[in-house]
Amino acid sequence: MKSFTIEEINTILGGELVGSTTLKITGPEQLDKAEPHHISFIGSTKYIKYWNNSKASAAIVNENLTVDLEENRALIKVKNADLAMAKLLEVFNPQPPVFDHEIHPTAIIHDSAIIGKGCKIGAGCYIGKDVVLAEGVILYPNVTIMDETTIGSHTIVWSGTVIRERTEIGAYCIFHTNVSIGADGFGYRPSEDGRGLVKIPQIGNVIIGNGVEIGANSCVDRGKFSSTIIGDGCKIDNLVQIAHNCELGRSCIMAGHSGLAGSVTLGDGVIIGGSASIKDHTTIHSGATIGAGSGVMGDVEAGKTMLGYPATESREMLKQWVALRKLAKQ
Amino acid sequence: MKSFTIEEINTILGGELVGSTTLKITGPEQLDKAEPHHISFIGSTKYIKYWNNSKASAAIVNENLTVDLEENRALIKVKNADLAMAKLLEVFNPQPPVFDHEIHPTAIIHDSAIIGKGCKIGAGCYIGKDVVLAEGVILYPNVTIMDETTIGSHTIVWSGTVIRERTEIGAYCIFHTNVSIGADGFGYRPSEDGRGLVKIPQIGNVIIGNGVEIGANSCVDRGKFSSTIIGDGCKIDNLVQIAHNCELGRSCIMAGHSGLAGSVTLGDGVIIGGSASIKDHTTIHSGATIGAGSGVMGDVEAGKTMLGYPATESREMLKQWVALRKLAKQ
Amino acid sequence: MKSFTIEEINTILGGELVGSTTLKITGPEQLDKAEPHHISFIGSTKYIKYWNNSKASAAIVNENLTVDLEENRALIKVKNADLAMAKLLEVFNPQPPVFDHEIHPTAIIHDSAIIGKGCKIGAGCYIGKDVVLAEGVILYPNVTIMDETTIGSHTIVWSGTVIRERTEIGAYCIFHTNVSIGADGFGYRPSEDGRGLVKIPQIGNVIIGNGVEIGANSCVDRGKFSSTIIGDGCKIDNLVQIAHNCELGRSCIMAGHSGLAGSVTLGDGVIIGGSASIKDHTTIHSGATIGAGSGVMGDVEAGKTMLGYPATESREMLKQWVALRKLAKQ
Repeated sequence: MKSFTIEEINTILGGELVGSTTLKITGPEQLDKAEPHHISFIGSTKYIKYWNNSKASAAIVNENLTVDLEENRALIKVKNADLAMAKLLEVFNPQPPVFDHEIHPTAIIHDSAIIGKGCKIGAGCYIGKDVVLAEGVILYPNVTIMDETTIGSHTIVWSGTVIRERTEIGAYCIFHTNVSIGADGFGYRPSEDGRGLVKIPQIGNVIIGNGVEIGANSCVDRGKFSSTIIGDGCKIDNLVQIAHNCELGRSCIMAGHSGLAGSVTLGDGVIIGGSASIKDHTTIHSGATIGAGSGVMGDVEAGKTMLGYPATESREMLKQWVALRKLAKQ
Repeated sequence: MKSFTIEEINTILGGELVGSTTLKITGPEQLDKAEPHHISFIGSTKYIKYWNNSKASAAIVNENLTVDLEENRALIKVKNADLAMAKLLEVFNPQPPVFDHEIHPTAIIHDSAIIGKGCKIGAGCYIGKDVVLAEGVILYPNVTIMDETTIGSHTIVWSGTVIRERTEIGAYCIFHTNVSIGADGFGYRPSEDGRGLVKIPQIGNVIIGNGVEIGANSCVDRGKFSSTIIGDGCKIDNLVQIAHNCELGRSCIMAGHSGLAGSVTLGDGVIIGGSASIKDHTTIHSGATIGAGSGVMGDVEAGKTMLGYPATESREMLKQWVALRKLAKQ
Repeated sequence: MKSFTIEEINTILGGELVGSTTLKITGPEQLDKAEPHHISFIGSTKYIKYWNNSKASAAIVNENLTVDLEENRALIKVKNADLAMAKLLEVFNPQPPVFDHEIHPTAIIHDSAIIGKGCKIGAGCYIGKDVVLAEGVILYPNVTIMDETTIGSHTIVWSGTVIRERTEIGAYCIFHTNVSIGADGFGYRPSEDGRGLVKIPQIGNVIIGNGVEIGANSCVDRGKFSSTIIGDGCKIDNLVQIAHNCELGRSCIMAGHSGLAGSVTLGDGVIIGGSASIKDHTTIHSGATIGAGSGVMGDVEAGKTMLGYPATESREMLKQWVALRKLAKQ
């Protein structure tokens, strides 16, 4: 377990140290759960009473707050407590799971695959024909990478994830556990006798930029033809569905359980709230925000905030909700 | 296949046997699908006509119902047909999948891992550094348990499930197939150039109590710091999302496709309906019920039933729905 | 990479060739992304301007459209561009991932399992006791098939999918990645001390017809007793939940994130939109359509289109939405 003196932590965070403690700090903890070896946070005045009752020896505090200080307790005053916390988490980030072998002997790697310098490949992984892994790619145990897929440097793939054939993935991406990349899009046509459905082949692929993170059990389908595209820096949460031929710009955010139907286009910096759904063939322009639980049925202009089902400009939707509440009381 | 005489079944259920049948009973079946070797259920008067047309030789019936009985057919009258059915399912519960080896030779188990007495570990499983499995833990094939995770006695983990490092799991839990425990929480901060997002390290873990069941393809994320906590006896259905730093009390129920955003607190005995979503940092107090499909945007008092989007006390929401229906007809 | 002359493609599609190109065609592409070796589509007049600016050497066009044609460019005029495109995708469908061994030596196959002629079984697969695979079944790497399951001829199972014990699967099905078939249904009863929940054994199974396709990370639970049934030709998208004892007729469609609670019955040809949810024990009769995002709380008549939450006949729901919008403006 890592531990630091309060002076060391203060140096890292570049704050102002008030008071002092002789205890070594082993990690961050919430005020009400902290033990003496923890450092905690006082983000606003309402947390000051928790600090007074907390066992924590130290806390990070916004510099505008006034907080009492007993003996052997210390405060680190900072301008931006959120940023300081992010730095603190980097300091205490524990070691990730170890690899006893760089490439585990039970991993099955096709002869034609090219494995970059410093790659780590866990037990039970499968690497198909003509796969290319750049430098420093990490595949945890039981990952499946299928034929002709290419993965950029330092990308991490967690266990249970399956990446189908011909996917193109950038550098510094993270795929969490049990993700499905490149499954067939959902496309059928009526059979000629009119009594059933015939599968339309899905011959496209998935292209994922650099610095993309995709959450556990999420799915990105391949294009019917051409590609489904996830732009650089997009962050996708758990259990998200991205259907065939969607195109996401840079740094979009999609929260848990949200979904895009086929051929949806997102501009740059679009934010999709949890459990929100977007109709097929619509475009959400750059900087738009879709509220949690919304159902979007048409294009959304740049920078707009949409809410509800069917989704409407958010202030308009709030008015509708108020109007309905009043109506029910008459 | 197991089979019992009707007298044996009656003894197990502690009911009152009326009529008799010489056929051996091989299992329960619905009235309309039953063959003569099945036992069925007559839960209310509306099922009596199905009994008259059913091939079943026997049925469990609530003792207050009056049902005709032909030759070589039998009824078991009970006080509580639901409870009797649960007992009957235990009686006919078939053998689970077999293990030809207690620990399969293809399982990869780190030297430092501690494996309790009577554990069964299937083919293709991976057990990381310093993992501890208590007595009688069962891991079906192709399970991944990462470093420093501890699992309590008699917990069962089905195939495809991945449990990330430093998770703490109690006794008698069940993890269904393709579950993801301990993936990183979804947390980013704006990059300093304002043009992208920087990942905030997620250094916490997941703590799961005793007797917890988690459905197929569900996800529980690790805490940003500190822990995501699932209390004793919670029952989580399939495709459920539980984000970082949520805390569930005892015996909560979450139905399929429901989700909790970050830092949601559930009291004891909270029920979350299918596809319902709960906003981050809210508290749903003990005994509250959230209707299916609801979107909860604020704290919910103990014992309240909430419905709709945005979720409102259920009678109020029903009034809103009625009012809107009337308005549309004007 | 496959390539064809424009004359060869015209013969396959049975169209009328206008103009000609000497370039070999390597695949379909959208007009705005096409290179000279691509064939594209002109589905309606609004795409004609894109054709004029496109690098594509060829396009499929509905025969009623009038399109300009430069030198070394060709058009294939067809009656039904959608059908022609489906045929074209079949023509260019690339080779699926290769198997270097028909049955990979690392696959663990129980001695009692019966493996049909021409089956392919990838690395890391697990096949349990008494499993039966008919002719030509394909299991990609890291698939788990548990005891007594039977799979019909030419069914394909992609990596990460787990099929629990005693499942019965037809011919020509496709299971995408990380699918969960046959996990326990979600059923509990109050414990006798009233302080918790006791699991009700889930002793039924799952029966899946012929020609069924199930999307990535979707779940079909086993019956409590008796079976959960998916009829011939059903097409299920990604992240779909089908709970215990549901029964789907022929050729139903369920889009991404949709879900059926326990014991829901769908007739034939029912369409469930994305993220829609259906209450337990309801029946959606043949030919009904449930709009995306809807929450259905009662039976639906044959052929009806339902929309909204709570779901109502769609024209009625559209009226409610209009009425509410007007009310908010007063």
